[in-house]
Amino acid sequence: MIPSFNFARIPHIIFGPGKLVNLYSLISQYGKSVLIVVGASSLKKSGKLDEIQMNLGDKMINYHVIEVKGEPSPSMVDEAAKKYRNKSIDLVVGIGGGSVTDAGKAISAMIPKVESIKNYLEGVGTKIHDGQKIPYIAIPTTSGTGSEATKNAVISEIGKGGFKKSLRHDNLIPDVAIIDPELMISCPPSVTAACGMDAFTQLLESYVSSKANPITDALAYSGMKYMKDALIPACSHKSSDINIRSSMAYGSLISGMTLANAGLGIVHGLASPIGANFIIPHGVVCGTILAEATKMNIKILKKMGSEGKISLKKYADIGALLSNEPLNTEKKLSENLSILIKTLENWTYVLDLDKLSKYGISYDDIKNVVENSGLKNNPVNLDKKDIIEILENRL
Amino acid sequence: MIPSFNFARIPHIIFGPGKLVNLYSLISQYGKSVLIVVGASSLKKSGKLDEIQMNLGDKMINYHVIEVKGEPSPSMVDEAAKKYRNKSIDLVVGIGGGSVTDAGKAISAMIPKVESIKNYLEGVGTKIHDGQKIPYIAIPTTSGTGSEATKNAVISEIGKGGFKKSLRHDNLIPDVAIIDPELMISCPPSVTAACGMDAFTQLLESYVSSKANPITDALAYSGMKYMKDALIPACSHKSSDINIRSSMAYGSLISGMTLANAGLGIVHGLASPIGANFIIPHGVVCGTILAEATKMNIKILKKMGSEGKISLKKYADIGALLSNEPLNTEKKLSENLSILIKTLENWTYVLDLDKLSKYGISYDDIKNVVENSGLKNNPVNLDKKDIIEILENRL
Repeated sequence: MIPSFNFARIPHIIFGPGKLVNLYSLISQYGKSVLIVVGASSLKKSGKLDEIQMNLGDKMINYHVIEVKGEPSPSMVDEAAKKYRNKSIDLVVGIGGGSVTDAGKAISAMIPKVESIKNYLEGVGTKIHDGQKIPYIAIPTTSGTGSEATKNAVISEIGKGGFKKSLRHDNLIPDVAIIDPELMISCPPSVTAACGMDAFTQLLESYVSSKANPITDALAYSGMKYMKDALIPACSHKSSDINIRSSMAYGSLISGMTLANAGLGIVHGLASPIGANFIIPHGVVCGTILAEATKMNIKILKKMGSEGKISLKKYADIGALLSNEPLNTEKKLSENLSILIKTLENWTYVLDLDKLSKYGISYDDIKNVVENSGLKNNPVNLDKKDIIEILENRL
Repeated sequence: MIPSFNFARIPHIIFGPGKLVNLYSLISQYGKSVLIVVGASSLKKSGKLDEIQMNLGDKMINYHVIEVKGEPSPSMVDEAAKKYRNKSIDLVVGIGGGSVTDAGKAISAMIPKVESIKNYLEGVGTKIHDGQKIPYIAIPTTSGTGSEATKNAVISEIGKGGFKKSLRHDNLIPDVAIIDPELMISCPPSVTAACGMDAFTQLLESYVSSKANPITDALAYSGMKYMKDALIPACSHKSSDINIRSSMAYGSLISGMTLANAGLGIVHGLASPIGANFIIPHGVVCGTILAEATKMNIKILKKMGSEGKISLKKYADIGALLSNEPLNTEKKLSENLSILIKTLENWTYVLDLDKLSKYGISYDDIKNVVENSGLKNNPVNLDKKDIIEILENRL
């Protein structure tokens, strides 16, 4: 039976090596004045930013550049929106990792407003954003958050009393996403690993989500199918292989589409309070706890008997996918569940994902983190002690 | 390896039994004046149109109703666009079968223009539509064309010198598609069969299309997975089963998304000239030749040796899907190809799909039809004699 569901619009997707070049003709469809949001590092170092600026100049396009350092904060977004509010910006383009594409998304949404973004953040402010924005093109340079296809921008205030919350509206889905795997070739192994695990977590969590629907199921499965054989090579001997980078970029893009429509689970429910209180890359949080969280979900689902069957079957589907053998018999269910857990544990080990304690998280912090966590659309209800166990196993 | 691809935006999808009720709150987001495009029959008979009009009245929404008879013609669209051009219409809503949802789409695109739609039709006019339109909501009452998710509207001039051509632009993809399977319950068996075969043809042709990409692959496969067990029951003893109608509606919706992004094959390449010259429902054309066309494609692909392997593997995937046994060994390829052909032949027989001669098509007409046919994105090149053979076998 197909459940009732909504599926939001997706960006117009332009996918393929070298497709960045489409940006210039696209810009002219929107107007003559563009705000480019970039990160602080790789795009500049690689000479790509110079190349883009030269091309914009050649085409007589009036452009401004904002550099984003780290994850976007309320004050950073407010400042940028204020600076460009009266500059008749026709289009915002965000080129970079997830922080940059989220920053661009937030700036494009806040230029038409006057108040601080804080007033519009979920769980922080009291206002609801109406979706009015400057058109926005997202161009990822990492394969991670899938922000190029999502309707939210994550804004962080780090430290005591900090938060990691979303500005969200269906209309904030980027108008266009250019996915050019060439831009990801220079991404270093540790970042590729953390981002890749974030994307895979998003795919797996939306696949087993209580809000999943046939479209998100089909897409999430496809994303994992392409990522499963690319993740380890992309972080090691095949980091320059464009086919491998294409598979990673595809999985990440799809993960944005599925999370936006099916939601996520306990891993992301923990990533928010951890990210708000400690300086730790989001992908590392997800990557380091995915295997443990999946193990716990499966353990609790097994205890539920027939009620847990549908979700267990979905987890087993992915175990079968990872083992390259399609699932066809009931007998194989628990075998495939073991394969899933073992593969995730193996990835955690091979990719050398940091433990949480490396970022200053101790036993004493766990209670507070769990208090502020949420289950999101986790396929099964977890008690506090279960969630504590997940974290303790990755301290 | 993932090929470079574009994927256009999709409508905001609202799917589920009873979801028609969402229409009223949606309308108010667009404005106060709405043009409703409906078909000549079922919606009126079932009392649904009265119900809709009553609800619009209650909500003080100013509405106009256009009734569409048969497939939309240039003069019908021109007349409607002219009549409502200066009436400040904020939103067009098309509720009906594929002809109606296409008519609504075309009218929403032609209200902002002044010339005839003929000037903008592919292969007929010389102008290119710029995508400017009145916002459009599509609500299908049959599970067939997938028009609720496509970027084109098929416009027909039937008879000598006639044509069946598209108005097309990415921006013509409906803003919202409400898929309410309850609206399909009253669809009679012969219409359900023809529309269902059209949708399945669209799914299969886009799955094996030379322009397919991982997203269209995942979606088309998912659409066929849900339709395969629903098609026969929907046309017989389970025509009132809401789960069966949901599966049909889902397959049809998905077929619109995949055809818009991966294109179609020889079946649709033949449906245009046949539909332009004879009065025959589009779904009957597709349904009656699908098995023969698939058999021919597979025959020619087999002759190609290694070059044909990828497409044969895709056809075999669907054979395996239809047999409910996942494909896992090379040995099974030709077995699964046979299952595919036999299942399609069986559907043609069980659904009692008319032969072409019933609509006045004779041996003498075939040459002219084939002259005007196109291969579209067929996975393999077919000679004229191959195409003639397909038609002769269904005369």
